[in-house]
Amino acid sequence: MKLNCDLGESFGQWQMGLDDAVMPHIDMANIACGFHAGDPLVINKTLALAKQHKVTIGAHPSYPDLVGFGRRSMKCSPDELIALFHYQIGAIDSMAKNHGLQLTYVKPHGALYNDMMADPAIFTTVLTALSRYHTPLKLMVLAGALSDESRALSQQYGVELLFEAFADRRYLDSGALTPRSVQGAVLSEQAMLAQVELLLKHHSVITHSGNTLTIVADTLCVHGDNLAAIAVIEKINALCQLARS
Amino acid sequence: MKLNCDLGESFGQWQMGLDDAVMPHIDMANIACGFHAGDPLVINKTLALAKQHKVTIGAHPSYPDLVGFGRRSMKCSPDELIALFHYQIGAIDSMAKNHGLQLTYVKPHGALYNDMMADPAIFTTVLTALSRYHTPLKLMVLAGALSDESRALSQQYGVELLFEAFADRRYLDSGALTPRSVQGAVLSEQAMLAQVELLLKHHSVITHSGNTLTIVADTLCVHGDNLAAIAVIEKINALCQLARS
Amino acid sequence: MKLNCDLGESFGQWQMGLDDAVMPHIDMANIACGFHAGDPLVINKTLALAKQHKVTIGAHPSYPDLVGFGRRSMKCSPDELIALFHYQIGAIDSMAKNHGLQLTYVKPHGALYNDMMADPAIFTTVLTALSRYHTPLKLMVLAGALSDESRALSQQYGVELLFEAFADRRYLDSGALTPRSVQGAVLSEQAMLAQVELLLKHHSVITHSGNTLTIVADTLCVHGDNLAAIAVIEKINALCQLARS
Amino acid sequence: MKLNCDLGESFGQWQMGLDDAVMPHIDMANIACGFHAGDPLVINKTLALAKQHKVTIGAHPSYPDLVGFGRRSMKCSPDELIALFHYQIGAIDSMAKNHGLQLTYVKPHGALYNDMMADPAIFTTVLTALSRYHTPLKLMVLAGALSDESRALSQQYGVELLFEAFADRRYLDSGALTPRSVQGAVLSEQAMLAQVELLLKHHSVITHSGNTLTIVADTLCVHGDNLAAIAVIEKINALCQLARS
Repeated sequence: MKLNCDLGESFGQWQMGLDDAVMPHIDMANIACGFHAGDPLVINKTLALAKQHKVTIGAHPSYPDLVGFGRRSMKCSPDELIALFHYQIGAIDSMAKNHGLQLTYVKPHGALYNDMMADPAIFTTVLTALSRYHTPLKLMVLAGALSDESRALSQQYGVELLFEAFADRRYLDSGALTPRSVQGAVLSEQAMLAQVELLLKHHSVITHSGNTLTIVADTLCVHGDNLAAIAVIEKINALCQLARS
Repeated sequence: MKLNCDLGESFGQWQMGLDDAVMPHIDMANIACGFHAGDPLVINKTLALAKQHKVTIGAHPSYPDLVGFGRRSMKCSPDELIALFHYQIGAIDSMAKNHGLQLTYVKPHGALYNDMMADPAIFTTVLTALSRYHTPLKLMVLAGALSDESRALSQQYGVELLFEAFADRRYLDSGALTPRSVQGAVLSEQAMLAQVELLLKHHSVITHSGNTLTIVADTLCVHGDNLAAIAVIEKINALCQLARS
Repeated sequence: MKLNCDLGESFGQWQMGLDDAVMPHIDMANIACGFHAGDPLVINKTLALAKQHKVTIGAHPSYPDLVGFGRRSMKCSPDELIALFHYQIGAIDSMAKNHGLQLTYVKPHGALYNDMMADPAIFTTVLTALSRYHTPLKLMVLAGALSDESRALSQQYGVELLFEAFADRRYLDSGALTPRSVQGAVLSEQAMLAQVELLLKHHSVITHSGNTLTIVADTLCVHGDNLAAIAVIEKINALCQLARS
Repeated sequence: MKLNCDLGESFGQWQMGLDDAVMPHIDMANIACGFHAGDPLVINKTLALAKQHKVTIGAHPSYPDLVGFGRRSMKCSPDELIALFHYQIGAIDSMAKNHGLQLTYVKPHGALYNDMMADPAIFTTVLTALSRYHTPLKLMVLAGALSDESRALSQQYGVELLFEAFADRRYLDSGALTPRSVQGAVLSEQAMLAQVELLLKHHSVITHSGNTLTIVADTLCVHGDNLAAIAVIEKINALCQLARS
């Protein structure tokens, strides 16, 4: 089980996240591409940091909404959405090559991620964008929430999927995450570590309604916003290494 | 002598330039990268149009100044400038590959072009940016205005130069263009065609002060803002073909 | 019946609309506030032009989406929406005072206008924003499409409404406009002038399904995108003057 | 001696400065207007906080450069600059009125402040902008650095000046601040408090070269970036109150 984390979310003079402190503890860095966060200089620094710690890099593209941090759905035409993907992924991909790195996957950000998971038309557009990209890139999606039709579609488009689970969020029976607005949506540290253990040992989680739900995941999403969060990542990392051994 | 033209300068709902009408008459398209003009959808359309007309494509990166159209100098650190180049060039380069096209050169836009020609430190930063780019790209500069030191520097950095002349601008004895604010800086159609003929036949221009200045150029910059401008491009094109024959 | 028109929609080097040609023929100018179009210099020029032609001025605020021209719905919290209104209206209001003009009304732009008409919660937020503004401003809404509850609510909030009808759009029986994607949504010149005559003489329109719908409007929305559109405005203006006499 | 501080410099999800902790200790809040920092929601919150602590409010307008935080000079025409001032000041002014507050002064931000102090043409444009604003507003300038001509000019334009001194910066003999790039430009806490005492008791500072320079100031600029900085503000505040008694 690999750990992935959103990084490179500073912008100009504004700092966000403790990238230097997080990078040593993760396996995959989802790098903001400048549309919800990140600027060219931040991207370059994040790539250099990923290289230093031998972390796999992915593009983290977004709707064009800096002030809203890409958290608001924006109705784009399929052509616009494909162009948004190609521009953002393309910039990161080329910049990675300058560092001798290879971009390997894409994880849409915020509202774009949610829309992709909720709306089959948008999921299809994302697959179209990736299938038209000049180099094959994997697509990270929410484990346990994709219909069989969507899985089949991704095969048809030749796009390999990476399934991610969330350490810190309570699941619904549907496999979706409990909305943040609902009480108990975000787990305490103890509940988080328990969920990670269950995921590692039994590929399952206990949902909001108390049911057991099977979640087979390639990677676990963690957050590095502050020092407390990073201490939790270290504990999760220890659980993962224990599971591997 | 190849004709180059700035293209892809529309943005969202705002149209600029008659790209469809210009593209058939030019050899090299300098494509805006989204920082002074162009958005991802516009870039994709411009690349498709260039492919259709077999036009060589270059990146046209800029300072980040949409409302000022990249025409205002902005004091960036070398690291910022390098990142600005890599991000913009990288986006266009990858998007070109999606169309089966290969980006071959870079022409900085507006104030960035002027600063590069006027300030050796910025010229060096541009060379550094290109030398660190993962693929060799040529750099378009103003013919007749580069010092021997700068030419030597570009060789040292391994960056091949493309020299461009301007059809529609009166030259100063220094090889710089007469500032637009000066009377007579922009040539009439007749004077423009005369200047093109002189460039083609004798590799020279008559400067603002009446002197003859040698200008050895690989390419001629033309503009396609309106139908009248495109009619002039057709006449320039005819002169070029005559010169080749 | 007053004619209102969206103006000041240029941005930086990008021109949109023939403001100089339209302004003499209209009564009310809806001025873009910089979030979907317009920049401070464009706003100042538009205000000067409105003053010259004694045109009543309104603010035309939008979601913050320059590349999408404010045509995409963006999910903002009520507090965000109120702040977006106050910032944009406030800027125009103060700039108008510098010209000795008084801002008198607000017409939300694009997706914000549609959302306000379709979603009572957003309509309430718009009323809240206007009721908390330091000076009373009227709110322009689509005539014939507001529920009795919404009318009552606007009275309760102390916000006076201006009802506008559209000259060039086919109405649905509900009083909403036929979506542009539907065949026949935008009227031919002849149909447009017939609709205007019906509105002026009988306060009604013939809907998409052929029914007669009562539309009592204070103002008619016209467009000045090109010379043909302006010629139509002149004809509409003539019909309005005839109706007054 | 009043304390002034730059506030409201967060943007969207990015936090900057500890506004809640600083506001109780200052007299004047220079509020970012959205062009280098601040968004409408941040501005509204900052105004509410200023009202709560009865702090005088000023507009802190900037060049339009979010990613550069307004720290880069941008060559704007006088008309553009006047419009930039009127838009930003106008937005804050109107939003202040919604809170029952009155904007009383303007302090240009970053590169705009430096350009205003260094270039008499820009200083004149700033005076023009303020003289054309519909309500009289004072202009905050660097104490000890304005020529007699500039002082006379501000009188001629009817713009009242507020002179500010810097607690934490070493002065040059010219009255300008030692550039941050020079060793010793930013004072230690001890040196800062010594400089404040000298300013309060003798209206003077010891310059970089060891000379005594007279600085007659209305207000002292302080910074509230972190808890340590706020502790220093409290000490400066104590010195000011001692001086008043």
